[in-house]
Amino acid sequence: MPEITGRTRVFAILADPIAQVKTPQGLNRIMAERGVDGVMVPLHVAAADLATVLAGLRAVRSFGGAIVTVPHKTAIVPLLDAVSDAARLVGAVNAVRREPDGRLVGEILDGAGFVAGLRAAGHDPRGRSAYLAGAGGAANAIAFALAEAGVARLTVHNRTAARVEDLFARLRRLVPGLLLASGSPDPAGHDLVVNATSLGLRPEDPLPLDAARLEPGQLVAEIIMQPAETALLEHAAARGCRIHPGLPMLEGQLALMADFLRMRP
Amino acid sequence: MPEITGRTRVFAILADPIAQVKTPQGLNRIMAERGVDGVMVPLHVAAADLATVLAGLRAVRSFGGAIVTVPHKTAIVPLLDAVSDAARLVGAVNAVRREPDGRLVGEILDGAGFVAGLRAAGHDPRGRSAYLAGAGGAANAIAFALAEAGVARLTVHNRTAARVEDLFARLRRLVPGLLLASGSPDPAGHDLVVNATSLGLRPEDPLPLDAARLEPGQLVAEIIMQPAETALLEHAAARGCRIHPGLPMLEGQLALMADFLRMRP
Repeated sequence: MPEITGRTRVFAILADPIAQVKTPQGLNRIMAERGVDGVMVPLHVAAADLATVLAGLRAVRSFGGAIVTVPHKTAIVPLLDAVSDAARLVGAVNAVRREPDGRLVGEILDGAGFVAGLRAAGHDPRGRSAYLAGAGGAANAIAFALAEAGVARLTVHNRTAARVEDLFARLRRLVPGLLLASGSPDPAGHDLVVNATSLGLRPEDPLPLDAARLEPGQLVAEIIMQPAETALLEHAAARGCRIHPGLPMLEGQLALMADFLRMRP
Repeated sequence: MPEITGRTRVFAILADPIAQVKTPQGLNRIMAERGVDGVMVPLHVAAADLATVLAGLRAVRSFGGAIVTVPHKTAIVPLLDAVSDAARLVGAVNAVRREPDGRLVGEILDGAGFVAGLRAAGHDPRGRSAYLAGAGGAANAIAFALAEAGVARLTVHNRTAARVEDLFARLRRLVPGLLLASGSPDPAGHDLVVNATSLGLRPEDPLPLDAARLEPGQLVAEIIMQPAETALLEHAAARGCRIHPGLPMLEGQLALMADFLRMRP
């Protein structure tokens, strides 16, 4: 890493837990490659403290912006001065840029990053039947990106059914003809199975879906990056599925994040 | 610099202006040498925003603490949960540690850094007669540190005599038996002569004391780091004094700062 001086711009990632994040490594590498005098640091922020921390960062003139992840992606939206159309529809933000006048502007890059990662691994979701576990911030972003990428059907499973209905109402505005179904824990019958919950981050987490119903030939994808091999991916591999870990989503996103945060010399 | 990960502790320097600060370079070097997984970044914070930024940093669990400089050293005192006796007496703080429970504790290391720099150069002030030019923030910190280091007598010269009396009133609370005198520009008769004013920063500055009265064998010390050789030090060397430039004060402080901020593996 280049030396940090009094002229270095500061970026942050806001998360809880934080130890597992990989974005600082990725964006610090990209800044070094681009010759940007900037640094990204990890800020461990509990849900209850987000507004306070954000108010503080807004007042820091050398602060360039933040990457936002669990549990802040949805909660941060009303705290920002402006968000993109995509972020408003998804109801979540994972990148916040600080404008020179102190305004904080939000964008969601999760979904685009996830689809870019899938495609880079040779998996085009167009025309496929997709099953999505979760209806939170990341799941919303991925649902919109899969809809935009042309999946034929989208089934969403979430403990709270009202969140699925809410997601579907917004998805129908974007892609009126898309086949949507509120699913059970059973992922059978779909080409692409995606875990977009945070289940799998901790060793004691239950599985996000009924892994005994996974079928050989299905593509099972994760958004969790650490551990790289979640319990779900282990089950999927054991049942003959192809697996797609969480890391390519980050790789797909890093360049998008660097551009949005104006990481340039 | 070592790689920044999700486990890296974050430290900051709070200043306005910020471009000129040298502490991040110094403390990041020390952390690398000590094998500490931490990083110090520059946060450009205007005086009016200090309370807001501090409230935000207090809520960041990966935040280890901050170095504080112009214009925040005095203003930050009432915003902290606790300050050291020295910081309370001096009325200023230049280092803030975040305890694991979120409490912010302040310390003033300017004076101790000066004394550490003196000692590292082989000059122990214990039992000596000291002459100090100035009664501002830096002079206050050095006066307390010299008193704690056991000088036998302290003479302070300042244009505004009321500031000297105010300083003496606080010094007497710390070291009741210390011999104190309000001085003239004449530094004759003292073992140690210290410039703790900002005179010497600019080429056109007058000397902070009557250099024609300096005596061979006196130790003449500066707090000014740039230029390294001030007009006062040039006069002192010409008159056969030993000289002690300003830079060792910073070097002496860096280790104290690193210790106070618990920068250890």
